[in-house]
Amino acid sequence: MELTKEQTQEIKDQQSQENKTKRVTAPELEKILYDAIPILDHGFIRVVDYMGDDTSIVQAARVSYGKGTKKVSTDSGLIKYLMRHWHSTPFEMCEIKYHIKLPIFIARQWIRHRTANVNEYSARYSILDKEFYLPDSEHLAAQSQINRQGRGDVLKGDQAKKVLDLLKNDAEQTYKNYEEMLNERYDGTVINEGKTGLARELARMNLTLNTYTQWYWKTDLLNLMNFLRLRADHHAQYEIRTYADAMLDTVKKWVPITYEAFMDYRVGGTEVSSKGKIVIQKMISGQKISIEESGLSKREWNELMSAFGLKEKIIQ
Amino acid sequence: MELTKEQTQEIKDQQSQENKTKRVTAPELEKILYDAIPILDHGFIRVVDYMGDDTSIVQAARVSYGKGTKKVSTDSGLIKYLMRHWHSTPFEMCEIKYHIKLPIFIARQWIRHRTANVNEYSARYSILDKEFYLPDSEHLAAQSQINRQGRGDVLKGDQAKKVLDLLKNDAEQTYKNYEEMLNERYDGTVINEGKTGLARELARMNLTLNTYTQWYWKTDLLNLMNFLRLRADHHAQYEIRTYADAMLDTVKKWVPITYEAFMDYRVGGTEVSSKGKIVIQKMISGQKISIEESGLSKREWNELMSAFGLKEKIIQ
Amino acid sequence: MELTKEQTQEIKDQQSQENKTKRVTAPELEKILYDAIPILDHGFIRVVDYMGDDTSIVQAARVSYGKGTKKVSTDSGLIKYLMRHWHSTPFEMCEIKYHIKLPIFIARQWIRHRTANVNEYSARYSILDKEFYLPDSEHLAAQSQINRQGRGDVLKGDQAKKVLDLLKNDAEQTYKNYEEMLNERYDGTVINEGKTGLARELARMNLTLNTYTQWYWKTDLLNLMNFLRLRADHHAQYEIRTYADAMLDTVKKWVPITYEAFMDYRVGGTEVSSKGKIVIQKMISGQKISIEESGLSKREWNELMSAFGLKEKIIQ
Amino acid sequence: MELTKEQTQEIKDQQSQENKTKRVTAPELEKILYDAIPILDHGFIRVVDYMGDDTSIVQAARVSYGKGTKKVSTDSGLIKYLMRHWHSTPFEMCEIKYHIKLPIFIARQWIRHRTANVNEYSARYSILDKEFYLPDSEHLAAQSQINRQGRGDVLKGDQAKKVLDLLKNDAEQTYKNYEEMLNERYDGTVINEGKTGLARELARMNLTLNTYTQWYWKTDLLNLMNFLRLRADHHAQYEIRTYADAMLDTVKKWVPITYEAFMDYRVGGTEVSSKGKIVIQKMISGQKISIEESGLSKREWNELMSAFGLKEKIIQ
Repeated sequence: MELTKEQTQEIKDQQSQENKTKRVTAPELEKILYDAIPILDHGFIRVVDYMGDDTSIVQAARVSYGKGTKKVSTDSGLIKYLMRHWHSTPFEMCEIKYHIKLPIFIARQWIRHRTANVNEYSARYSILDKEFYLPDSEHLAAQSQINRQGRGDVLKGDQAKKVLDLLKNDAEQTYKNYEEMLNERYDGTVINEGKTGLARELARMNLTLNTYTQWYWKTDLLNLMNFLRLRADHHAQYEIRTYADAMLDTVKKWVPITYEAFMDYRVGGTEVSSKGKIVIQKMISGQKISIEESGLSKREWNELMSAFGLKEKIIQ
Repeated sequence: MELTKEQTQEIKDQQSQENKTKRVTAPELEKILYDAIPILDHGFIRVVDYMGDDTSIVQAARVSYGKGTKKVSTDSGLIKYLMRHWHSTPFEMCEIKYHIKLPIFIARQWIRHRTANVNEYSARYSILDKEFYLPDSEHLAAQSQINRQGRGDVLKGDQAKKVLDLLKNDAEQTYKNYEEMLNERYDGTVINEGKTGLARELARMNLTLNTYTQWYWKTDLLNLMNFLRLRADHHAQYEIRTYADAMLDTVKKWVPITYEAFMDYRVGGTEVSSKGKIVIQKMISGQKISIEESGLSKREWNELMSAFGLKEKIIQ
Repeated sequence: MELTKEQTQEIKDQQSQENKTKRVTAPELEKILYDAIPILDHGFIRVVDYMGDDTSIVQAARVSYGKGTKKVSTDSGLIKYLMRHWHSTPFEMCEIKYHIKLPIFIARQWIRHRTANVNEYSARYSILDKEFYLPDSEHLAAQSQINRQGRGDVLKGDQAKKVLDLLKNDAEQTYKNYEEMLNERYDGTVINEGKTGLARELARMNLTLNTYTQWYWKTDLLNLMNFLRLRADHHAQYEIRTYADAMLDTVKKWVPITYEAFMDYRVGGTEVSSKGKIVIQKMISGQKISIEESGLSKREWNELMSAFGLKEKIIQ
Repeated sequence: MELTKEQTQEIKDQQSQENKTKRVTAPELEKILYDAIPILDHGFIRVVDYMGDDTSIVQAARVSYGKGTKKVSTDSGLIKYLMRHWHSTPFEMCEIKYHIKLPIFIARQWIRHRTANVNEYSARYSILDKEFYLPDSEHLAAQSQINRQGRGDVLKGDQAKKVLDLLKNDAEQTYKNYEEMLNERYDGTVINEGKTGLARELARMNLTLNTYTQWYWKTDLLNLMNFLRLRADHHAQYEIRTYADAMLDTVKKWVPITYEAFMDYRVGGTEVSSKGKIVIQKMISGQKISIEESGLSKREWNELMSAFGLKEKIIQ
């Protein structure tokens, strides 16, 4: 990730603000406010604004006149209780806003979370930056042979080199032709004076899906956790997971008590079906239980055993 | 509206905070932050948190790295343009949170706006305050004879007095019986020691709809404007309108440029149908136009004439 | 629940329709379409429209051109997989619409689920029916002494009788005064000719919260399941639970495969936190584990033991 | 647009259904149900399901037990009234579901309407079709010189030819390399036996934004009208407008009364700001009014004059 001088200066200007406020603040989050945290080869996330902290959740749950805090231990107990029992509305009382740069094919996954507010850089109006995502060689994975939606081993040697060359050349060529059609380069210089280029809203269709875009993305804490629970999960595509992981860090700095409860009950937790509960009960009481009796499919059985670290029970 | 000593102290404690932040602030709004602004006889609104200001809208519309402000005049032009052309997403980038006390029958109208976040005081868990709304005599209106959903003249003399007596007596009696069933008074004192009262979640059903409740209510600026456009309108019920009017004042302190554009294009503006446009065109060019030719219903015709202040054209 | 002759006729008229359609239909649901299923003393639910069936979920998950069904067993496997892995969007492709009559204090709980479409009977415009909820004696529960938000034992003898009398008398009296203020009875007859009553939008504030209201309520299957998961749960207030239970039956008739997966994975399932997983693992392997080592609070420990039917491990 | 034999057969199978239902039906819409209506060079829209008709809106607005219809003229009057006064919730009671094939860069505009339900064809899981959008020569427009977000004249001669060649060649080449990286062709044949290709979730990033995708898209009538109002407007990009225009036709077949009101009040109507109202008033009364006195910007003035067909007043 490289920022222009101007962009670096704009970020510094924002960070040099020292405003007074009667609002609650999150001191650890303030420290990294506006910072561009690098993700992938040209992407980043930046926290650009936020509202509320852990005490805001307590305040809303109690509908109190004041700050809602009695003692940290009481607050922590209440937040854990709310998380455990899916009392979701108090977590909606905190809000955060990110500025994010990301490849278009990841943006298309991301936007499926409809509960956030989004303003994306407009390629109808402006020319997109000349930046495209090329995976690191360690992330250049083959198609999984067992999961149609997953990755297998990393590609090696010539095949890896060839894939990277194709991705790079195609991105560069289609971008060059994008400029050609626009009759304008990414830096604003005109190619042929006196000629009018193709409309921007049309020319963009020639770009490949690894081209970077950017947006402002704002959401409340509840919906952010829903997003992170799915996207920081190991089933998520690696590229979006790196964004989710970096965002998890910002949640930790922002609302540390909620973060801890979230990691315990959601990210690190598991769900057990009614049939699965019977299997676990029998195992605890030392009874034998076979997959046939359980009523679980092989896939379900293995997911259950895996969730409780019972690797020896996994059926090949 | 009367606050207890404790509540007054809690508000003062919040207002005495002097935190430093790198976030943008809205100085005029900071001045009234946490203040309980009285509405009706026992209600209030309090701004308890906010995110962003006018420059945040510009920043999001431009997806810029920095503050998004070039000069105030440029920002103002852009905000007006966005408002006029229904570019709605930049206005979603500002967020505000209110603490509101209001009668239940108004809360029921209010909650129909589904895009906000809400935490309401729980009458399953706690005892509701002994406060009920009684209209001022000037707002004690008769049923309108022409609009089934509106108010006519103000009631007078004996009839007014009787209505107020009925409202007051019924609210007091049902509240007294609420306490009786709970075996507990509003201040927490037990009525008959050694006896268990009816469950709170049941006892509350005896209260009248003018009993006050309270909630935390958080929304973005776009949805707040949608709410205010409908609820600060003269078609809205007087009681909810007083809340909306007070909230309009807070919007003015928060995002003055957006407020001005909102008043010009939405609150003070009007819509004209395709048939209505033809009527206006003919009037401008001095042609005669009758309601029959216009294709408008009498009601539509009168709404159009009224919108443009053409009182002499209104048909009785 | 009593319907007027007119209402009964209107329902019969709807049921006598025999339209032809190329849309998919749910034959079991068609059988009860428009039926008013009685709930509580005066309430009901009626399914008045629906869109899609189990195959619509499969069709959307596959984005197929045709019906999406290969064989029932394949469809069933896919639906279970989607449910287990929180692939939520295919379930949004089915939609259902209910007509519901319910007490206002329950309507206020219900409306907190914001993702549905709602049209409520307007008491600004019309007079509410003279019907209020009075609990059966078996549901007249005392306040729980251990859970501030729950019910304890059933009230008995004189106390029960007194509570019912208070509820009944207060509802009748406030309704009578509502009519008085309106100068109009529930059946539309004017009380004093030549006098104008109080505006309806004001008079309604005198009614108690057990007065019945009604609405059209439309939602997609995903959000319906979210609603039912919370409201058919034993933590939910009895009164809303009876509605949820009746709605579960309609889901079974509508989308039987999805219903089965929902009961197994959601309603009958449980969640285990990361700390809880370690406790279960140790129990399975026969290791001793105490609450102190577990890091769980007493409440969490008991919830975990209770979820797996380990009553002997519950700590008093 | 070309469908495979299999797809054509699947559509025919759906159309040959003749189910009986007690639900209301929309006979004109039934006639085209499941039809693939061609849009652009390879796209289409198909209505695949719907719920409700014009009478459903009336029924919900009245919260009636029966069909809600008195006479067509009464229903029409009520629907017009609801549309004029922004009573939005009754229009949410109708729902429609489309199957749509569209270029990715248009899908990205479309998805910004967040209130619909969407299931998109997964390029993580499957291989995308070998189809990309190439504009007709009459739609190959130059960048507008006055509106950064618009189109100017159509490109001609060599420039047009060159643009089309670049678009075609780049799409074909990147698709060929997509297959190469996957080690699999669009029809499923393996290129090099015994080799594993790049993961699908990665290979897709090489495709250009004019590649076609498809999705199931479901929305209620209110949100559909909000979508159509913006996307059937002349400010919308031509490519999405062609989809919106075809959808307008389906609305006309589905809910003809609502369609008429929508065209009159929304699509054909205009909004006038509070300053604009004064200008119109003065014009009607024959007073002189200049742009300086009006307080309008030049752009606003011209938009106002244009809305009322006063071309001679437009300022260059």
